[in-house]
Amino acid sequence: MDVYDVIIVGAGPAGITAGIYAQRARLTTLLLEKLGVGGQIVVSDLVENYPGFQKISGSELMQKFEEHARSVDLRIEDEEVIEIRNGDEYKSVKTYDHDYKAKSVIIASGAASKRLGAKGEEKFIGKGVSFCATCDGFFFRDKDVLVVGGGNSAITESLLLAKIVNKVYIVHRRSELRAAKILQERAFEDPKIEFIWNSVVEEITGHDTVEKVILRNVVTKERSELAVDGVFVYVGLVPNTGFTDVGKDDNGFIITDENLATSAPGIFAAGDCRTTMLRQVATAVGDGALAATSAERYLSAKQRSTES
Amino acid sequence: MDVYDVIIVGAGPAGITAGIYAQRARLTTLLLEKLGVGGQIVVSDLVENYPGFQKISGSELMQKFEEHARSVDLRIEDEEVIEIRNGDEYKSVKTYDHDYKAKSVIIASGAASKRLGAKGEEKFIGKGVSFCATCDGFFFRDKDVLVVGGGNSAITESLLLAKIVNKVYIVHRRSELRAAKILQERAFEDPKIEFIWNSVVEEITGHDTVEKVILRNVVTKERSELAVDGVFVYVGLVPNTGFTDVGKDDNGFIITDENLATSAPGIFAAGDCRTTMLRQVATAVGDGALAATSAERYLSAKQRSTES
Repeated sequence: MDVYDVIIVGAGPAGITAGIYAQRARLTTLLLEKLGVGGQIVVSDLVENYPGFQKISGSELMQKFEEHARSVDLRIEDEEVIEIRNGDEYKSVKTYDHDYKAKSVIIASGAASKRLGAKGEEKFIGKGVSFCATCDGFFFRDKDVLVVGGGNSAITESLLLAKIVNKVYIVHRRSELRAAKILQERAFEDPKIEFIWNSVVEEITGHDTVEKVILRNVVTKERSELAVDGVFVYVGLVPNTGFTDVGKDDNGFIITDENLATSAPGIFAAGDCRTTMLRQVATAVGDGALAATSAERYLSAKQRSTES
Repeated sequence: MDVYDVIIVGAGPAGITAGIYAQRARLTTLLLEKLGVGGQIVVSDLVENYPGFQKISGSELMQKFEEHARSVDLRIEDEEVIEIRNGDEYKSVKTYDHDYKAKSVIIASGAASKRLGAKGEEKFIGKGVSFCATCDGFFFRDKDVLVVGGGNSAITESLLLAKIVNKVYIVHRRSELRAAKILQERAFEDPKIEFIWNSVVEEITGHDTVEKVILRNVVTKERSELAVDGVFVYVGLVPNTGFTDVGKDDNGFIITDENLATSAPGIFAAGDCRTTMLRQVATAVGDGALAATSAERYLSAKQRSTES
């Protein structure tokens, strides 16, 4: 039975970078990805802050990352990891089809969009409720949509939608945005974008598809209706870390030290799935390089202690 | 008198990335660089591990970074910072010509090559002694050269030199290399490269230019002579941090917390100049993004406390 030097979980920017570094360090490496190479960033229409590329779509950027990984012969398999067990001799990485063995593991499994929890939300997913303007925006051209959230993603995607649809309402539970100032300014200047402050979505209704939302102002407690054809949800992230029992924070993000080691020796975490202030392609790439280097040093220290 | 939101010291990958992020966050930003955009990486002939670019020279990559920075109107001035003082109201950033004021500072000043300390070394700099094979390798074509060191830089540059010169001796004070395995393998397979283990350079001699070196085996204590026309030195890094009195480690690298804050409030550090396990373009870029975001949050927290 083969035992890999390192198994990487997740093929977003962090996992791909870890794979490139691990391959270049001559570690036998396997990367497991459940959905396809790219991670969350593939749904971004425009990435302007990964240095070296002034303007590139998330999917194009990740295609370049994948080509880079293929050029160093990184093995990538389409399998979902359901459990990692930390044995004495090696770690066991279970998927639905296999039980892989590795001397070290890098978890770069990213995070997924959080649900609103509004009535009707689940029912209308794919019928007007979306978590990805890049994927679904085109279906709403010349229609009215609602975006929920106040962070970078909410505003970035609203600006994108404003180019496609008739009208973008942004509903935010607070009276100011968290998004970068440059994005805020662009949104405030966009004639198609209108803000609804201090409000939350209570219900999403319609017949076959979304027809209106019921909003509640959290200050005045007043309810109001708004006719929209689509609802785009950007209210936060949930880490994909259910398959591992390494130490996590209250929200499920993996806690690491400065070299990205987790609570389990030989298991490292990189990118969006770990507790960190900033989740960007730039930081994921730094994480990936560091996690692979940490794994390499862990393996070579272990080898020395075995030999002596 | 203008007070910048943030002054960035150094235009390598970390500083440029911090500049892109700071500009996009609508902070008034000034980047000061003493030598020209690019940092240490511009002397690398080939960068293969910055994701998105399979093979690119350090100088080409940094040209793309500079263009990216210019596209967001980052102001870059060619000035050397000689002192940073941390006042109550603002930080003072002194150069030979100016005394700039800023509310926050990001130090991304990098690190420079360490000297051997061998007799004759200083005398022959530019006359056979070099710290940059990419810059000077061509002058030694079909000649014999010595490379000193055992890390990634030493081996990467030896491989480059082997394409140009007649013979590359690599002298290393230990009996094994620190460089990445893939580099080690390439070097061991290269017929033009010969290793001299457990040895140091004691003296570099010649008339107008380098003619030979005197080596000492650190195990047997034996001295030997070797005729070479050039000596390339890759024995480590010294951080460029003399202008600041924030907390540093024993080697002068700046100590930061996980969000890159230094011991002085409002002063952050990013890239090679800080204490870190790994110094790569990938990690520098992550650092730059994080340092700029930390500076932005510091400024907005300060503004709120001033307003209230």
